[in-house]
Amino acid sequence: MEKITSLAKRRGFIFPDSEIYGGLANSWDFGPLGAELKRNIKNRWWKKFVHERPDIVGLDAAVIMASEVWRRSGHLKNFTDPLIECKKCHERFRADNISPIAIKKSACPLCGGALTTARQFNLMFKTHSGPVEDTSTEVYLRPETAQAMFVNFEQVVSASRRKLPFGIAQTGKAFRNEITPGNFIFRTREFEQMEIEYFVRPEEWKKYFDHWLEEMKKWAADLGVRANKIKYREIPKKERAHYSERTVDIEYSWPFGQKELYGLAYRGDYDLKNHGQIYHDLETDQKLTPHVVEPSWGVERSMLVAMLEAYDEEQAPTAETDETDKRVVLRFPHWLAPYKIAVLPLLRKPDLIKTAQQIYDQLRLDYICEYDETQSIGRRYRRQDEIGTPFCVTVDFDSLEDKKVTVRDRDTMKQERVAIKKLPALLTNKLKSVNV
Amino acid sequence: MEKITSLAKRRGFIFPDSEIYGGLANSWDFGPLGAELKRNIKNRWWKKFVHERPDIVGLDAAVIMASEVWRRSGHLKNFTDPLIECKKCHERFRADNISPIAIKKSACPLCGGALTTARQFNLMFKTHSGPVEDTSTEVYLRPETAQAMFVNFEQVVSASRRKLPFGIAQTGKAFRNEITPGNFIFRTREFEQMEIEYFVRPEEWKKYFDHWLEEMKKWAADLGVRANKIKYREIPKKERAHYSERTVDIEYSWPFGQKELYGLAYRGDYDLKNHGQIYHDLETDQKLTPHVVEPSWGVERSMLVAMLEAYDEEQAPTAETDETDKRVVLRFPHWLAPYKIAVLPLLRKPDLIKTAQQIYDQLRLDYICEYDETQSIGRRYRRQDEIGTPFCVTVDFDSLEDKKVTVRDRDTMKQERVAIKKLPALLTNKLKSVNV
Repeated sequence: MEKITSLAKRRGFIFPDSEIYGGLANSWDFGPLGAELKRNIKNRWWKKFVHERPDIVGLDAAVIMASEVWRRSGHLKNFTDPLIECKKCHERFRADNISPIAIKKSACPLCGGALTTARQFNLMFKTHSGPVEDTSTEVYLRPETAQAMFVNFEQVVSASRRKLPFGIAQTGKAFRNEITPGNFIFRTREFEQMEIEYFVRPEEWKKYFDHWLEEMKKWAADLGVRANKIKYREIPKKERAHYSERTVDIEYSWPFGQKELYGLAYRGDYDLKNHGQIYHDLETDQKLTPHVVEPSWGVERSMLVAMLEAYDEEQAPTAETDETDKRVVLRFPHWLAPYKIAVLPLLRKPDLIKTAQQIYDQLRLDYICEYDETQSIGRRYRRQDEIGTPFCVTVDFDSLEDKKVTVRDRDTMKQERVAIKKLPALLTNKLKSVNV
Repeated sequence: MEKITSLAKRRGFIFPDSEIYGGLANSWDFGPLGAELKRNIKNRWWKKFVHERPDIVGLDAAVIMASEVWRRSGHLKNFTDPLIECKKCHERFRADNISPIAIKKSACPLCGGALTTARQFNLMFKTHSGPVEDTSTEVYLRPETAQAMFVNFEQVVSASRRKLPFGIAQTGKAFRNEITPGNFIFRTREFEQMEIEYFVRPEEWKKYFDHWLEEMKKWAADLGVRANKIKYREIPKKERAHYSERTVDIEYSWPFGQKELYGLAYRGDYDLKNHGQIYHDLETDQKLTPHVVEPSWGVERSMLVAMLEAYDEEQAPTAETDETDKRVVLRFPHWLAPYKIAVLPLLRKPDLIKTAQQIYDQLRLDYICEYDETQSIGRRYRRQDEIGTPFCVTVDFDSLEDKKVTVRDRDTMKQERVAIKKLPALLTNKLKSVNV
């Protein structure tokens, strides 16, 4: 884990938010490579689940929603964590994170001081819309993207003329004022969700629950997650969210323990009923409240799991000598890699630079590429390995004569000589299915 | 304008936020088509300005940033509007929106009541991070994406080894507690920006200011905006933001007047100095504070201007009779259209449906498509015209024999007969450069 966080900062994947001012706890900014990684994840998800499927449409709703939405949804009352404070050191804990013995003795796990009794703390961020700060202007940052899909249900059905079963998909920020966030980007106060609310006839929910479990399994594999690192945990009633009648957590063996990666919840008709939303089947003239199956993915967790799974270290031969040294490589699936291709002149000579720049200028119109001419070629290969770039294209002195370049594969380190003219077609073929 | 707002709601581009609970003033949700339109705009912008350019990298920073960022940036002190309230009807106004005579007479423009004197009202949304609401936990939703590019400047330079001039690009939500938002999605409290901070040597700012003005002009043209609807307004000193030494507003003739579409600001070294960020040129060992040229685009305004420019009405022949009726068509550039292709069986007959579905199943892997079998073919053509779908593919009884379909062009309404086998290649060719 330390290796990932250090690499993430050094190479521009993830920076602590507001760091020059001491940072904002558990808040992160995504640097140039992190921004690309996030985009790749969100774009592939959207293509796979919205564009390629005939039964799902997208939505992009506001972060700030009226209080009434959260009153009806139950979040104002139920979206809370039990908060305990130490009267001596003023550290705050989630009651369910402290051992029952400490609570019984009322002893702070840090300083031994007396603890307050637990109070329910609402996890929604509150702010005021308009120039006056009173209860009439109170609004909340959404703690989940889901509610927008419920309150807009009838509008979406009517505008897009959907028949059951169908889904509404959304990606976007959600905010939770967590008492104890942590573990790098695993649990943060601000995060991005990818959610689908899949509306089905009540009697069919089990079938679609299974369908979505299967889809989530495939998604994880697509991201490069090995099947043996995943566990499916049936969540018992007392641990389930207030709206859920069945939930399966897709758990991953994180370096800090086996915890939730994604979640699949059967929400029944709880939400549509709360918001008085009804489905009218025009063909049978039947009115009903559909039931909801909700697969939910986190963008940051997808990113973290992909980096953990892709991370590899090995002893490998250096480019210049017969010796070996440590090679760090992020073995991302090609579609996920922030840069697809790096173009490198072997040395910093005008002729080599000119040819390399021409190749870079062309490839960059189709793929996100990097151009790099600093330091030795060996150092540059290692640098690209470390950020997961699938292919390096090297221009050497022979290139000026034979109009060929060397294409190096990130995973095998094998090099092949390719005519410059054939380069775009070759790379397109190698990177196939990358444009998502 | 009323035609656009009505079409936007009816066809699922834009819904009022939280509408079932009376709506949240000036807050909007983007329905299935609006979500696609927004994605198309953001994705093309990112491809054009980040992927295709060698000198710009992306960033994706948190919405909630530490208070200190906003103290140093000047926003806590200066990002205010003068607010005046009527003591009688309690309506609130921006002082600069009321006529000087009304202010002098202290008479409310609505009820004639007495007005308060103006007080400075800060436009940032405040919330609290952590379980206690006091000044130590105060944080703000960013009112612009820009500051994150400044506070992360040195980190980005060091991680991505950039040389001047270079830019950092970001798209994302910003929040402003505007006193008088309005005009549909023109001014909203929550909106999405696409911004570039372009860092240059101090003596070169004018050159790059001109460069970016040119790029913004091209972008507007690309979006379908006619040049004669655009004005470039040099903003006088007293109207400029507190940080800007030169600003040009790119104004559009909206139905509600000529107002800002995009903005280009020269921010000098104001921001990097505020945050103590320095650029170290390793080759010359020179240290300096770069100057900043900032082109800034709004996603929602891009969307609105694109819809206004694309909207057209004409008398056109109906599909079934010799008569004409009114045809509403959104003449979006192909890259912008929410759906690229609609697949339509001529009638609701099993054979036609089967063939149409097969075509739809194939095309949908490459393009976002719609399948529609309800109502007459004429109605369905009009429906696709109204949402700007460039091509309709119709399967009729002849198709079952000759294995050909009819491809109808949105703009010309011309139809051509195409072999099903050749359909993907033909459409790819017609929609060329659409995949952005």
